[in-house]
Amino acid sequence: MPPITTQSWDPAPFRADIQVIVDQVLAQERSSLATISPDLEPMIQDLTGLMSAGKRLRAAFCYWGWRAAAGPADLAEHDASMLRVASALEFLQACALIHDDVMDGSDTRRGLPAVHRSFQARHELEHWTGSSELFGMGAAILLGDLCLSWADQLLFDSGLPTDSLLRAKPVYDIMRTELMAGQYLDLLEQVRAKPSLQRARNVVRFKSAKYTIERPLHLGAALADARPEVAIAYSTFGLALGEAFQLRDDVLGVFGDPAETGKPAGDDLREGKSTVLIALAFSRATSDQSARLRSHLGNQELCVADVQDARAILTDTGALEATETLIEEGTQAALLSLEAAPISEEGRAALTTLVDAATRRAH
Amino acid sequence: MPPITTQSWDPAPFRADIQVIVDQVLAQERSSLATISPDLEPMIQDLTGLMSAGKRLRAAFCYWGWRAAAGPADLAEHDASMLRVASALEFLQACALIHDDVMDGSDTRRGLPAVHRSFQARHELEHWTGSSELFGMGAAILLGDLCLSWADQLLFDSGLPTDSLLRAKPVYDIMRTELMAGQYLDLLEQVRAKPSLQRARNVVRFKSAKYTIERPLHLGAALADARPEVAIAYSTFGLALGEAFQLRDDVLGVFGDPAETGKPAGDDLREGKSTVLIALAFSRATSDQSARLRSHLGNQELCVADVQDARAILTDTGALEATETLIEEGTQAALLSLEAAPISEEGRAALTTLVDAATRRAH
Repeated sequence: MPPITTQSWDPAPFRADIQVIVDQVLAQERSSLATISPDLEPMIQDLTGLMSAGKRLRAAFCYWGWRAAAGPADLAEHDASMLRVASALEFLQACALIHDDVMDGSDTRRGLPAVHRSFQARHELEHWTGSSELFGMGAAILLGDLCLSWADQLLFDSGLPTDSLLRAKPVYDIMRTELMAGQYLDLLEQVRAKPSLQRARNVVRFKSAKYTIERPLHLGAALADARPEVAIAYSTFGLALGEAFQLRDDVLGVFGDPAETGKPAGDDLREGKSTVLIALAFSRATSDQSARLRSHLGNQELCVADVQDARAILTDTGALEATETLIEEGTQAALLSLEAAPISEEGRAALTTLVDAATRRAH
Repeated sequence: MPPITTQSWDPAPFRADIQVIVDQVLAQERSSLATISPDLEPMIQDLTGLMSAGKRLRAAFCYWGWRAAAGPADLAEHDASMLRVASALEFLQACALIHDDVMDGSDTRRGLPAVHRSFQARHELEHWTGSSELFGMGAAILLGDLCLSWADQLLFDSGLPTDSLLRAKPVYDIMRTELMAGQYLDLLEQVRAKPSLQRARNVVRFKSAKYTIERPLHLGAALADARPEVAIAYSTFGLALGEAFQLRDDVLGVFGDPAETGKPAGDDLREGKSTVLIALAFSRATSDQSARLRSHLGNQELCVADVQDARAILTDTGALEATETLIEEGTQAALLSLEAAPISEEGRAALTTLVDAATRRAH
């Protein structure tokens, strides 16, 4: 086990900086939408709610991917611009969350109604005609599209030199394609009758490891014009940590405290998610356990006793423990690769802090 | 009435050029998705079908917006790159169509099953679990997101000089925001009980006139580094023509031949679209006509006799004739502004051809 580097970076001021930029962009887009029609105001209202929280992990990995590898002149000159680039990833993430909630039929996000539910509620309140559900869905699709657009808009409005932006754009493009592709594979995994551990891990790789950690780091490295060894180290680090991060999220999706996850208890069960945790459970379950677990997955009427039963199966089969072991292994592999990465000591310390933020039990 | 300029431009070779680029991009993205998972292949299959047709109007306006205003050196050097930029708008349009069909619950597009229906059918064929409808919808949302991403990717991969791209990006950004905003206003118009002519015209302005004509022309002008007078002339031309274009589309949505529209007869009625045509009819209808028209709008079980009755109401109230008058006025205003625009004669002739393509009765 590698020694733990001193955790010197405090994410709170960083998050506050990101929030300031997010709020500036929202204010600007609010004015811009108001010139089109006052009816667009609810879009900004909902987005303001959604974007007022979050761990800002992708933003932090992008920012530190740059800062850990940038030269002194770059560091001195471009810090404020890099915060804007980092904030762009939060708009991309907002698109992913809004569209994901539509696809999953989720009711809540970060403790608030999901965007499609919020627009559905507006429809009902106003006694509009037609299906309130379809209206909510349509509005959420469009707000997600706006977020996807505003993300690269902010990237290019960051104030960074043109050559940096053109170096970063292909990385950004790959990241978006991998995100959407990973989301589709995830969707496909949910509807296939037989959970597959191998496929579940491929979903994790593209939807989470690459999108949340490796590519944001690569984006930072490209903006810093870092040498190839840095991007290679970021890949080793990012993919190991990214898998651990998603597995932690999967565990929280079943065992997490609603007050901390912002989602109802056992929400992943209700949505029938075919996670690595679930695939591991099926691979170890007795036929009785399999049948019970299958009955809970995707059950919209899931009650507290069902959640407890599912938790017991995940624990009794050893799936939970095996997942925790995978998380621990991924975390250690990430820390080990971080030790050897050709980056600044300050960067190493901050990324170590982020390892903890991405994988710890409570968020 | 201004004299009709000789219509010298043949859109067929242009469309063929656009198709070649679209196919190249699809081949490239097919390879790129295959490195992630073979399961992604259906995404490219469906997109290939969707993108193998279309009038390429947005592409043509963008291309001619540039060509009509560019200097000789620019014209000589950047023609091939501009075809790539123009093709980018076809990917943006693919996103709009795919997401629009999800929101409208449309079954077909360009004579093929809509993307969400196609994925729904795959789900049913494979006997997957869960809701096939939700699966189709999720896949279509993601494919639309991919198209939205690939559009600006292609813009930046066009081979144009960086300074041109940076001049064009803000125009591109405004265009996307106006498109999504316009789509939301359209959605909102469908659910409001009382059709409003004023609001319906605002929807047309943003969803169609700006997105389909004015902004593609502005994008071309920005890439040509044209003087401000050109963009101003393009606005006058584009907004007048764009309204006429959408009104023609609205007429075709009720009176069009399914063989030519690629949609079932009277599809706009079935979807309950609050178009200018419909708003005009309500403003002129007797209470009996109003009641009958209301019963047809949004009626999923609409039969041939219902379509005929709705057509009769639109004709008898004079709404059809009033709409044709608006189309004619818009077309004439567009042609008049084109006469005075500070652009090349070749450009003027091509844009005149496009006026006809955008507003003629049969497509």
